[in-house]
Amino acid sequence: MTVYLNGRLVADDEARIDPTDRGLTLGDGLFETIAVRGRRAARTDAHLARLGDGAEVIRLAIPLAGDELKEALQDVIEANAIDEGVLRLTLTRGPAPRGLWSPVPAQPTLLITGACQDLTSQEPVPAVIATTTRRNEHSPLSGIKSTSCLDGILAAREAAKRGANDALLLNGAGNLAEATAANLFVVIDGGAVTPPVDDGAMPGVMRADVFRVLSATERTLGPADLSSASEAFLTNSLGIRPLTAVDREPIGDGNPGPVTAEARKIV
Amino acid sequence: MTVYLNGRLVADDEARIDPTDRGLTLGDGLFETIAVRGRRAARTDAHLARLGDGAEVIRLAIPLAGDELKEALQDVIEANAIDEGVLRLTLTRGPAPRGLWSPVPAQPTLLITGACQDLTSQEPVPAVIATTTRRNEHSPLSGIKSTSCLDGILAAREAAKRGANDALLLNGAGNLAEATAANLFVVIDGGAVTPPVDDGAMPGVMRADVFRVLSATERTLGPADLSSASEAFLTNSLGIRPLTAVDREPIGDGNPGPVTAEARKIV
Repeated sequence: MTVYLNGRLVADDEARIDPTDRGLTLGDGLFETIAVRGRRAARTDAHLARLGDGAEVIRLAIPLAGDELKEALQDVIEANAIDEGVLRLTLTRGPAPRGLWSPVPAQPTLLITGACQDLTSQEPVPAVIATTTRRNEHSPLSGIKSTSCLDGILAAREAAKRGANDALLLNGAGNLAEATAANLFVVIDGGAVTPPVDDGAMPGVMRADVFRVLSATERTLGPADLSSASEAFLTNSLGIRPLTAVDREPIGDGNPGPVTAEARKIV
Repeated sequence: MTVYLNGRLVADDEARIDPTDRGLTLGDGLFETIAVRGRRAARTDAHLARLGDGAEVIRLAIPLAGDELKEALQDVIEANAIDEGVLRLTLTRGPAPRGLWSPVPAQPTLLITGACQDLTSQEPVPAVIATTTRRNEHSPLSGIKSTSCLDGILAAREAAKRGANDALLLNGAGNLAEATAANLFVVIDGGAVTPPVDDGAMPGVMRADVFRVLSATERTLGPADLSSASEAFLTNSLGIRPLTAVDREPIGDGNPGPVTAEARKIV
């Protein structure tokens, strides 16, 4: 596999990340997960806009212009002959002396990896509501894709342990925020509803498209709202999955519904 | 500089972290910051116990036994002739395919770096209360030293921007949790008080020692409690710093106090 690292395409087993990189030592970085379809990166403008928003929040310099970033993404697609699959762009603060308070490094680290992956099979998801941890709606990190992801990992492990395929995370106030790596939509009274970003939902690239196409609304949703939903689904850049049960209670009749089918057309 | 990486001592510019390491891509790791005094690592039993607690929370395998870890720490001290300074032990999940949900990697990454540093000068700290972000007392990550540190980085940047030397973080409920990389003690009615771990305070190694020696108490502290404090200080493994002002309001008379001086004797 060939990866892009700081301006060069290199074999993955030759790519070297410095052990003092703040991405490694402090989770001080951003990422984007980008679908590849027909040998092209999908929704790059939206992904790069969000990367820019995150860079603004954590004051991280993006070392390439938008066109150069797109070119680097395409280079990784071509180098690995990815017709359908996933790119992962990771941007970190770069190598620096130890400590939160160390001076800002001269050079951020920009890494792009890619792999072939079948994106068509988006199986129905039975989920649980995570009890291990919660989203922090008081942190701006809930609104950007940072590499400090350990809360999501804890929730994913809990889901796997409880025999589910994903976990929904509550925020500190006890309201629904999102799934471990996807946004939540529920259909209530025929309309699609999704938790607001202020409740700890990631402003997902696919979420934005689904929101527009379905004329969805944003509002605070508690776990009790799931019982009045006729259907629900999870969205991320890689696709849209029906959410068919939560904590072993079926959503609606427990089958994928028509609004989910409508949403899936836009992928 | 020589570092320890996965069983070997290597020159830092030859040490290679794999670009797929989940420590880099997802903040999926733990760390300990350990003082070196008299060419020995300080409080290693307490640090390794806490590392073990964190490994239990995130289900991460520690690849060496305690004695072997201590030997590796000492090897880094000797290789770099560190009489006084700091060791940084970083343990990550290791290289893995993309995604929160990817299978658990076969081999974690264990990295130890070290540097000489003067630990004697612990200057008085004027701090601010961070408004950018908060500690998540609903997450078990607040009780372990994970490498998903970006909230602390945001708070540190805010402090620097506002001309302060540290930031105090509130939790979601609006109570005091800790500083960016240190625990908080305040002296009220002659007694030392520190926020409980359940309020989002890290169970600091130095915090535990100070707590015992000063017969301190744990209780929930709001920002308003700072005005009734006669003195305050911040503790971490590298030392104890007087906290002399918060948001430009002096703590007590704005000078380091006698309880702080007493605490500093135990370093």
